[in-house]
Amino acid sequence: MVVQRQIHLGAVPYGTGGPGSHTLWLDPEIPVDASVDIDWYAGVAALAERGKFDLLFIVDSQFITPYSPPHYLNRLEPLTLLSALAGRTERIGLVGTATTSFNSPFNLVRRFGSLDLISRGRAGWNVVTTGDAGTAGNYGLDDHYDYDTRYGRAQEYVELARALWDSYEDDAFVRDRETGVFLDRAKQHVLDHEGQYFKVRGPLNLVRSAQGHPVVFQAGDSDQGRDLGASVGEGIFTHAPDIPAGQAFYDDIKGRARDRFGRNPDHLVIMPGIKVVVGDTDEEAREIEAFNNDRDHTFAAALAEFGRPFGWHDFTQYDLDAPFPAETLELGRRSFYTQAKAITDRAVDNGWTLRQTVEATRYFRKSEFVGSATTVADKLVEWWEARACDGFNIGVDHPSNFQRVVDEVIPILQERGVYRADYDATTLRGHLGLPVPVNRHTAARAGAGVPV
Amino acid sequence: MVVQRQIHLGAVPYGTGGPGSHTLWLDPEIPVDASVDIDWYAGVAALAERGKFDLLFIVDSQFITPYSPPHYLNRLEPLTLLSALAGRTERIGLVGTATTSFNSPFNLVRRFGSLDLISRGRAGWNVVTTGDAGTAGNYGLDDHYDYDTRYGRAQEYVELARALWDSYEDDAFVRDRETGVFLDRAKQHVLDHEGQYFKVRGPLNLVRSAQGHPVVFQAGDSDQGRDLGASVGEGIFTHAPDIPAGQAFYDDIKGRARDRFGRNPDHLVIMPGIKVVVGDTDEEAREIEAFNNDRDHTFAAALAEFGRPFGWHDFTQYDLDAPFPAETLELGRRSFYTQAKAITDRAVDNGWTLRQTVEATRYFRKSEFVGSATTVADKLVEWWEARACDGFNIGVDHPSNFQRVVDEVIPILQERGVYRADYDATTLRGHLGLPVPVNRHTAARAGAGVPV
Repeated sequence: MVVQRQIHLGAVPYGTGGPGSHTLWLDPEIPVDASVDIDWYAGVAALAERGKFDLLFIVDSQFITPYSPPHYLNRLEPLTLLSALAGRTERIGLVGTATTSFNSPFNLVRRFGSLDLISRGRAGWNVVTTGDAGTAGNYGLDDHYDYDTRYGRAQEYVELARALWDSYEDDAFVRDRETGVFLDRAKQHVLDHEGQYFKVRGPLNLVRSAQGHPVVFQAGDSDQGRDLGASVGEGIFTHAPDIPAGQAFYDDIKGRARDRFGRNPDHLVIMPGIKVVVGDTDEEAREIEAFNNDRDHTFAAALAEFGRPFGWHDFTQYDLDAPFPAETLELGRRSFYTQAKAITDRAVDNGWTLRQTVEATRYFRKSEFVGSATTVADKLVEWWEARACDGFNIGVDHPSNFQRVVDEVIPILQERGVYRADYDATTLRGHLGLPVPVNRHTAARAGAGVPV
Repeated sequence: MVVQRQIHLGAVPYGTGGPGSHTLWLDPEIPVDASVDIDWYAGVAALAERGKFDLLFIVDSQFITPYSPPHYLNRLEPLTLLSALAGRTERIGLVGTATTSFNSPFNLVRRFGSLDLISRGRAGWNVVTTGDAGTAGNYGLDDHYDYDTRYGRAQEYVELARALWDSYEDDAFVRDRETGVFLDRAKQHVLDHEGQYFKVRGPLNLVRSAQGHPVVFQAGDSDQGRDLGASVGEGIFTHAPDIPAGQAFYDDIKGRARDRFGRNPDHLVIMPGIKVVVGDTDEEAREIEAFNNDRDHTFAAALAEFGRPFGWHDFTQYDLDAPFPAETLELGRRSFYTQAKAITDRAVDNGWTLRQTVEATRYFRKSEFVGSATTVADKLVEWWEARACDGFNIGVDHPSNFQRVVDEVIPILQERGVYRADYDATTLRGHLGLPVPVNRHTAARAGAGVPV
């Protein structure tokens, strides 16, 4: 059976603000406490599920100052939030961000395993190493780990997680009331992991879900980040300014997966984050975008968020019209360094001022996905057909706008046969076309005795 | 206004088995995978809420072997479970067990804070130090901490948690769309905690819930455990064989709270765990108990769980009819030592065999709360009036039995005016009659400037 390639969609709710929508909370459509209001999230999830989205994607951060933008100041922990949504949704995948730098593996693996069972196989884990260096201070460290340590930990952590999720083979629980046998003891497995960064005995006290393991997402863009994504990622959250850049990233990641790590590149779904604005006409959509940009993109808020890759450096202290202060790059060494370096290099190469540099970031860049529903659908299909991506993570900003995506854009994609008319799977792996991993112990036993 | 003293009730769902119900899963009324089935838990929660229970209490453990009893082998992580239930319940308190030995404070405090917001002020945290010494192996340690370290960490951890929950004063978020002011920056507070065990900078990126802080429960029975409960506990989960023992514990804990820690003893609610069996008559109830004991209390399962306080020592290797092997006490040094010591002392004093010792544990002891609905209600009121407790944590074992508690015993308590006819509060603190803690920074400011 040939499975028709499909567009995959994620919804990314930002609450009171987000990249490209710095002062979203000024929109009277949104509760001012949306970022901690479970009913607001449940409403977004219901809408996304009506649109047959593959997944809901929850981002995270754990470091704030009094000057942090609104959406950083007050936010629900992703796993708690998604567990609450599991009971209020039926089919949509639930992907949460969690760091391998500041969580004990056994705890986190257990929580994702529990979410996967509670949601009946809809959990996903966005593996991050934490870009906000200041977070280290919340976990007893004076400095954040260096890049190699961060990614070394992440690599070992994911492998360890998958091994723990395999603690029980799928038929380990006999549960025979006649004989009184609950467990086939040969099918519970101790791990005894001792690696470079972690030592974990196991077993995990949890059976696997309908999808075997939670789906692993990855979002880093450094060389180490790309290797991590290519080796263990099943979904990639990225950012691409245009089709050629998207294609270059797509080829690089899928090429690394195939050539360096011997993986099937179809088992890695690439979904850039995008901003969509829908209007009755292209012109009206551009007007809505301009109105929202005027309201949302107050320069002060953007300038505050601009400091994030530079370790949340305060850029208000510089003259906006003087050359970009390139010496600040060093402050990003243990933060989002790849991003800080790209910004700095571009500013220096172009001889930009600080103001020009801030205005050139993706927070200010005009989106390609602005227009009538037909125009937006055309653009989505164009990117996807060009293999600049396998789908999109659509930012949920203004509620009425996201509703138009669901009610007007989705039906066009469905009509063109590039997007599901209804869910045909119950798990996140099912939605994304990813295989259910065979339990390693079952595979080993089969490999030893029986041809497979 | 004088608030009438009321009986407080908790429901403790054990899933596929529990203390006093070792092979509960053999009951065809219960799904064989109840301990990982969110719908089963939601059903219990709905029933408890129909009975106007104060709270649902989720116990935990994280260490298993192939010989662990069924209810240890496969269980949902408590915070994930309770977050899922938050969206499927309206009023009942949600209390989860989490250890201060193997969670980073910032993570755990953030998760409980999130649960408290998601449930709109219904979260409770059962603070434990982990009795299963083998758990240490899942967190990179060769040995569990000694008792002093365990309780030293717990004490510092709870104080730290409460300080982090106070990161924002209640009116910190201005959110004025006219002026564009989101935060009153003077009302966000850095913690900069550096204690004996933990170093945490803060602030926590979460506002407080309707009840200020999650309610802190405690369950340890050692001298250190009692001091921890008396100093920081607001609820105590204990076990008492009879009224005099209950009274002695009650007086001890409330006395410590008042005399050693200067607390109002009414702000500490003591709720022993009990097993209830309801029948049409006392005789029928005793028959049901005998039938269930016969099915549940298979000696082999009880013998396996008997090893728990002794570091899950395997007692099947001894002659059941030889004197109790008292040298095993040493194996419990870093586990549930207080419990292991009490068992050993009693066995030695009485010259019991291993079989007699196992049969004398609370898992086998006949419950006082067995009889017709009237008899059970009488017993509950008798304990409560004698101040052997402030309420009870009732084990949810056989579904039809728990239904009889709700439908037959509760109405009698309501009629007698000792139990709420309906919820009159929306938060767990409200149910338990506990005050909402004033934010420490608000209090300090008020204390400095304005008389309060």
